[in-house]
Amino acid sequence: MPDAFDNLRVVLVATRNPLNLGAAARAMGNFGFAHLRVVNPYEVAFREARSAVGASAILASAEEYTTVADAVADCTLVVGTTAVRHRELHHTLRRLESGARLIRKQLVTRRVALLFGSEKVGLANQDLSHCHWLMRIPTREEHISMNLGQAVAVCLYELVRDVKATPPAEKIQRATANQAERITAVLQDALRASGYVQPGAAVATEEKVRRLVRRLDLQAGDAEVLLGMLRQIAWKVRQ
Amino acid sequence: MPDAFDNLRVVLVATRNPLNLGAAARAMGNFGFAHLRVVNPYEVAFREARSAVGASAILASAEEYTTVADAVADCTLVVGTTAVRHRELHHTLRRLESGARLIRKQLVTRRVALLFGSEKVGLANQDLSHCHWLMRIPTREEHISMNLGQAVAVCLYELVRDVKATPPAEKIQRATANQAERITAVLQDALRASGYVQPGAAVATEEKVRRLVRRLDLQAGDAEVLLGMLRQIAWKVRQ
Repeated sequence: MPDAFDNLRVVLVATRNPLNLGAAARAMGNFGFAHLRVVNPYEVAFREARSAVGASAILASAEEYTTVADAVADCTLVVGTTAVRHRELHHTLRRLESGARLIRKQLVTRRVALLFGSEKVGLANQDLSHCHWLMRIPTREEHISMNLGQAVAVCLYELVRDVKATPPAEKIQRATANQAERITAVLQDALRASGYVQPGAAVATEEKVRRLVRRLDLQAGDAEVLLGMLRQIAWKVRQ
Repeated sequence: MPDAFDNLRVVLVATRNPLNLGAAARAMGNFGFAHLRVVNPYEVAFREARSAVGASAILASAEEYTTVADAVADCTLVVGTTAVRHRELHHTLRRLESGARLIRKQLVTRRVALLFGSEKVGLANQDLSHCHWLMRIPTREEHISMNLGQAVAVCLYELVRDVKATPPAEKIQRATANQAERITAVLQDALRASGYVQPGAAVATEEKVRRLVRRLDLQAGDAEVLLGMLRQIAWKVRQ
């Protein structure tokens, strides 16, 4: 998959805030994408972002274009991002999850451009006309518009997410019944010696403690630690 | 599900950059989460973020705390975020996809805190010891550390993504972080009084006990019973 990632071009159109250029580049680094293209950035922003302390190699090697057409010329699939739900979109609009799935497939064999518009107005109709289809992050109607850097991060995350169909994994060893029973015994010992057990309630308390210890669903390592703690405490109580 | 979202507390610990506070609040608005808590923010940053033009209602109603313990006291599940893969984590570490699935399930019935550390160092060990388990965004080894605002956006996105796949609720009431902390305190009290704590290891033991108690994933009723038992034992040990 990392080779396929090499086929993605992140294209930022008319970005105005240098922090957003930096943030986009950082998210690309986080998720393994290297090729950034900028179209008509606010020049001051672009210079500032490039010269910022810790500016990344990604930003330094970003390619600058004056038109969207040029920026996507060598790509065979062009996808635009939008916060908009309806408006008279002349494009197929896909939710991020399904759009990203399609892009992942295409990246194996094709060069794909992913476009992000400016902070204020997003992609203009002129920009959109270069796109094969559009993708939308599922934000709420009331707060529909995302910060640009965050939108880039979420889109790229969705592209790398679940690449290997993530197994539930988790190899944690649980305590054996024998460990649980040893804990039960020491805890009861301490309870008896400390006067917790009411006369005549010994059996009921024993069962209560046993059930409680089982419900803890202890990890094997924790069981040994807890046993050590309780032994020390019980020993002291009996003094 | 929107009702379930009301059960999430986004907790930012020791945040230094006002832009990140603003960005976190904005992502919360985008994805439908309303409750922000800040622990020991850099005061200037917090004031700046709150007074920024367009500062959201979320930021205005953010609650400020001086300790992580207080900030998560009323939550029954506390999840920390980390960029780290291995280091000697004493916690179960889940990839974001599977961690978010678990959180979604819990949110239906339980109040959940999701912790983010400071920009420079993330969550400290002391903070981590309040967590039941940790979650990691799958960034690359070479660029492992995400921008805070982007990390919040990606985590919240993963929570809302595919909402319709939410499984049926679980009705068991879990212990609150406050109950867990009370158990931790009494257990430590008993351990100290019984000579379990080695000289010079007080802090390490405290964190160890705290983590262990969180891993027990106690039911609310069991927490009260266990607290009663430990109090009696601790009282006796101190005699």
